[in-house]
Amino acid sequence: MKLGQATIKDIARELNVSSSTVSRALKDYPGISDETKRRVKELADKLNYRPNAVALSLRKSKSFTIGVIIPEVVHFFFSTVISGIEEVAFSNGYNVILCQTNERLDREKSSIDTMLSNQIDGLLVSFSKETTEFDHFSKLMDLDFPIVFFDRLPEIPNAVNVTVNDFEGAYQAVKHLLEQGYKRIVHLAGPSNLAISKKRKEGYLKALAEAGIEADESLIIECPGGNEKESFDVTKQLFENEKNRPDAIFAHHDIVAAGAMMALKSLDLRIPEDVGLVGYSNWQFSSMIDPPLSTVSQPGFKIGETAITMLLEMIDKKRDYKSEPVQVVLDTELLVRKSSVRI
Amino acid sequence: MKLGQATIKDIARELNVSSSTVSRALKDYPGISDETKRRVKELADKLNYRPNAVALSLRKSKSFTIGVIIPEVVHFFFSTVISGIEEVAFSNGYNVILCQTNERLDREKSSIDTMLSNQIDGLLVSFSKETTEFDHFSKLMDLDFPIVFFDRLPEIPNAVNVTVNDFEGAYQAVKHLLEQGYKRIVHLAGPSNLAISKKRKEGYLKALAEAGIEADESLIIECPGGNEKESFDVTKQLFENEKNRPDAIFAHHDIVAAGAMMALKSLDLRIPEDVGLVGYSNWQFSSMIDPPLSTVSQPGFKIGETAITMLLEMIDKKRDYKSEPVQVVLDTELLVRKSSVRI
Repeated sequence: MKLGQATIKDIARELNVSSSTVSRALKDYPGISDETKRRVKELADKLNYRPNAVALSLRKSKSFTIGVIIPEVVHFFFSTVISGIEEVAFSNGYNVILCQTNERLDREKSSIDTMLSNQIDGLLVSFSKETTEFDHFSKLMDLDFPIVFFDRLPEIPNAVNVTVNDFEGAYQAVKHLLEQGYKRIVHLAGPSNLAISKKRKEGYLKALAEAGIEADESLIIECPGGNEKESFDVTKQLFENEKNRPDAIFAHHDIVAAGAMMALKSLDLRIPEDVGLVGYSNWQFSSMIDPPLSTVSQPGFKIGETAITMLLEMIDKKRDYKSEPVQVVLDTELLVRKSSVRI
Repeated sequence: MKLGQATIKDIARELNVSSSTVSRALKDYPGISDETKRRVKELADKLNYRPNAVALSLRKSKSFTIGVIIPEVVHFFFSTVISGIEEVAFSNGYNVILCQTNERLDREKSSIDTMLSNQIDGLLVSFSKETTEFDHFSKLMDLDFPIVFFDRLPEIPNAVNVTVNDFEGAYQAVKHLLEQGYKRIVHLAGPSNLAISKKRKEGYLKALAEAGIEADESLIIECPGGNEKESFDVTKQLFENEKNRPDAIFAHHDIVAAGAMMALKSLDLRIPEDVGLVGYSNWQFSSMIDPPLSTVSQPGFKIGETAITMLLEMIDKKRDYKSEPVQVVLDTELLVRKSSVRI
């Protein structure tokens, strides 16, 4: 029996009970003894029984529903991606349901289960910060279930995805700071298990290297939480001492930059005169804060449009993404505002 | 035949075709003539055939999935409500799926259809700005389908809902501006069809009346779009002329206040010295802009927690909300920051 292809009948035969007993035991219905439930569940586990996978392969009709899994809806970037997804989905007669994982792997897995049992036609995924193994996705892909990843790139060969050129975005941001005469540039980095964080750090390092500046590991601080409180504390500590004080910050997103800005203000450091500051993602508020924040803009709407367009092609089998996996990389744009201009 | 209780069999009998033909015609499957599809759909329409309603009444097992319908995920307030919902839902073994309507009635209706065909156990709803009739909700409630409304109060008798005391929140905000010596206070109001907008306007008017100030209708401007561009333009026009210039603004939410702030700055008006400014909703950026924005904070997380708790009680029939409908009103909190303090 192939992995994951065990059916309720297989389990029933093996345990010498009825299929209906197995089904009810798996759903924890009353009227089935705890002992039977335990035996059914153990065997189902052992045989890797997957109701969703079976349901998938048995599906005949389309639901015209697309599932979107995102870390956090509150992120302005993700909300623009969702807008792009919805525009194309609705104009093609599809509805969109969203699940947010709050950056947690367990919620990501249960979101997938929920969506599959709801018979979605395909999935768009930006996985959680906690996700380091990708079996829960690759198993579905093996069953030819349509999935397109966006923003965060999974370690799955041939995964279809849409990302932005984070390396180039970070490189341009740090090059700009160097051109403005800043020299000791801090990088408030993202969680190191995400490819986007790695790429942004590489871009930062390349710009420094090109300028003949040796990277100082003590200036690269991971801010995995990504909230303003965390970056406030980190920045305050880094800039408290006058001796060897850094003179610029490249933050891995705008909320982190905003926290850094508040810390610099609390130390009476002037932006951009004393310290230059560039963020990432162009949040809604970034042009409204004082000074307005320079940032790297990602084409969120276009990411959404591109991802859903590819997903609909997979669903309608208009293009063979399996034999020709597509990895789209979109360009970022550096928005120079007052926080980083001192020439 | 009662409204909405027609079945596929009724349609088949009337048209003298098979049930399977009706089913396939309704789903637009190939292999059915256009003429048959037209006849089936016309009759289904005439008989008010509702597959979801029937599916609902036939449902036996729980899906442990809750549907949440919100206008826009990008609103910081809604994202905090969602967090509250998810905390309680997950800890009770439920998953949450979201649909955003983008403030459009047609998307609201199709979101409901999507969620119902996905067999959710109950719905949490904040309806769109376009929604002025509520049949699509009340029909479900008549079938005893569990729904709890939050933030926006529908015109449905006995609807269970959770709102905040917008009247009191607005009253406190404007009273505070008056205490700070501001006299000609503009109200940048929300769309007039929403109860929250009406309540906030009433609170504004009560504070003025108590201070013996006659309301000036030319100072009450509707900003239905709720974006910063709109309020920028409105504010610039209002404050351009020195003659009889207003000296304060109470905005119906913080994005609107932020647009107004940028307009005041562009006119070289000082905040709070020349013009006082109070927003509503306490967005994430409101403490980060310069000057930090005074605002009315709504307990978003608590709204979410309260709404889902009531919904789970409805689902599990632990409490009879039908004979004793509950309308919870939570308190707001005025957060006084620099933008409105000149004494």
